[in-house]
Order: sequence, then structure tokens, then C-alpha cells
Amino acid sequence: MLYIYTGNGKGKTTAAIGQVMRSLGRGWRVCIIQLFKGKEFYGEQKMFKKLRGLDFYSFAPKHPFCFPKIKKSAVQAQCRQALIKLEKILKSKKRRNLIVLEEFNIAVRDGFMNLRELIKTISLAPDNTYILITGRGASKELIEKADLVTEMKEIKHPYRKGIRAIKGVEY
Amino acid sequence: MLYIYTGNGKGKTTAAIGQVMRSLGRGWRVCIIQLFKGKEFYGEQKMFKKLRGLDFYSFAPKHPFCFPKIKKSAVQAQCRQALIKLEKILKSKKRRNLIVLEEFNIAVRDGFMNLRELIKTISLAPDNTYILITGRGASKELIEKADLVTEMKEIKHPYRKGIRAIKGVEY
Repeated sequence: MLYIYTGNGKGKTTAAIGQVMRSLGRGWRVCIIQLFKGKEFYGEQKMFKKLRGLDFYSFAPKHPFCFPKIKKSAVQAQCRQALIKLEKILKSKKRRNLIVLEEFNIAVRDGFMNLRELIKTISLAPDNTYILITGRGASKELIEKADLVTEMKEIKHPYRKGIRAIKGVEY
Repeated sequence: MLYIYTGNGKGKTTAAIGQVMRSLGRGWRVCIIQLFKGKEFYGEQKMFKKLRGLDFYSFAPKHPFCFPKIKKSAVQAQCRQALIKLEKILKSKKRRNLIVLEEFNIAVRDGFMNLRELIKTISLAPDNTYILITGRGASKELIEKADLVTEMKEIKHPYRKGIRAIKGVEY
């Protein structure tokens, strides 16, 4: 099953984390492969370490939007590593019930990850494995393939009033 | 600060849980007051017990939509208890940084909770306390008061294809 959280509003990543918690509560084995965030930047990452049944991987910590000096080719190479990791996990005997692919929509949208390769890799998922992809700008093709799609739509956000990202809330 | 997650798509409650995890990761004190869900039904509830810094309260476990024999007056009385609990928490010396009011939008929409009383109670929140209200059908007045509003909009959902709620995913 393929689930997608997309849209320009707050709540995509936090909904994925909440989904992880719900699944762990059922004794599921869960894996998160995260792009563009760095291993130590987000509050939730401090919690991941404490949770049993959860494997957490982070690739391509720096997105050129925030770090303009990063070369596109370097980011592409790191995103490819993320896909190789996903392939290994999907082919492994250690079954995961839920695999969260954090910000993979962004990677495809911004040309760091090949959509064909992503689709080919997730097609390796065994039945009853849930794959949840987050990030704004989900591709039409992924949306067509998905079983569930929610658009997190921004109605209001404090940054419109000039309030910057708040530690504990936004990260 | 008042945050609202509303809309008809999957992700409101899970986004609130993810927000809880992020805030706990920052050492925040967090409180969840939940309506209409029962203490033992959701996978995430098994995780709540394991988390330090989190207080979890549940009221009005049965919504008449699912349990038609429940009297409206009984649900109203239980929702009032939830508001009284919220008032106590907001007036307490033990400060909470984040308070999640799960499905309070539904309580207002369905006439189990008085909007004026809810607004009056949340206005007691100290500065720098984040209140996050979830549930579809957020009232216009709450949306106007809010600092952040995300609409979780259903684009696709497996139940449209007749697939029932899945343990570990939907609950």
C-alpha cells in the first residue's frame, strides 16, 4: 500500500511521525528514511533513538535551497544512496510493516531523485508493507499509483505574520 | 498560540501525535485531552504510557455516530468535564508547553461542546503555551482566532475502494 502526504501546509512530517507511533504501538516494525534534514536538527529525532522497533536512516542532510553551495550532483548521489538503502530493506528478510520516505516528493520534484527509479524500487515492497511518502509537490504519477493521498493545505501559518520557525513546534 | 488541524483527510490526529513527539524531544511538557476515542483503542495510546513529560486524558469515549444508544446529554456532560480539566491544567502552576485538544472541533460541530466556553477556556492559556485543536469541521470563529490552520484534504482514501480501517494504520 502506498500512502502520500503532500501539500504546502504544516503537518506532513508530523503526521508521518504520528503514524510511526501508532504502528509501533501495534508492535509493527517501522523504518524511516529521511532526506534533507540532518540527523540532529529535529526534536523528534531525539525521540526516535528511544523507540524500539524503529530503524532511522538519514541521507542528503543539506538541500541546496538552504545550502546554496552544495552541488546538485552531490545531492543526487546521496539520494541514490537512500534508494539503494530502501532497496536493501525491501529485499531483506527482516520485514518492515511501515516504511516512511521522508521528503522523497521533494527529491523527485527538484531533480535529485529519478521518479522511474523510485517507482521501480517501491514496487519491490511485499504485500502488506505500507510505504508512506511525504513532501510537498508529489508527482502526478505517484498520486495515481497511491492508495491514500492527503493534501496538507495551508489555510494560515504564523510565518505569514513574520514569525520564524519555533523550536519544539516546527523543528 | 492556537493551531488547528482540520479537514476530511487522514493525518490530523497523527500530525498532532507527531507534534507531541517533536515537542517532547525538546524537553517540553505536553498534555493531550482526547475525546471520542476510548482509552485503549488506538495504537498510539500504547506508546503514550511510555513517554515521559506527557499527560494523557480521555473523555467521552463514545461518539453517538458510532454508538447510537448514547444519550446526547451524557456526551455533553463528559465534554464539559474535558473543558473543566483543561481549565484546571491552564490554571495550574505546572506549566504545559503544548496542549493537544483531540477532536474538540467535532465536539463543537456536533453540539456537544459550547464554542463560547471553549474559546473562554483556551483564552486562559499563558503566553508561549501552544494549543493544538484537531478534528474535521473546525468552526469559522476558531479558524479566525488561530495562528496556524492546516486543512488535511482527502485526495484519495482506501475506504473509497471498500477497504476498511486497518489496525496499525487507521487506529
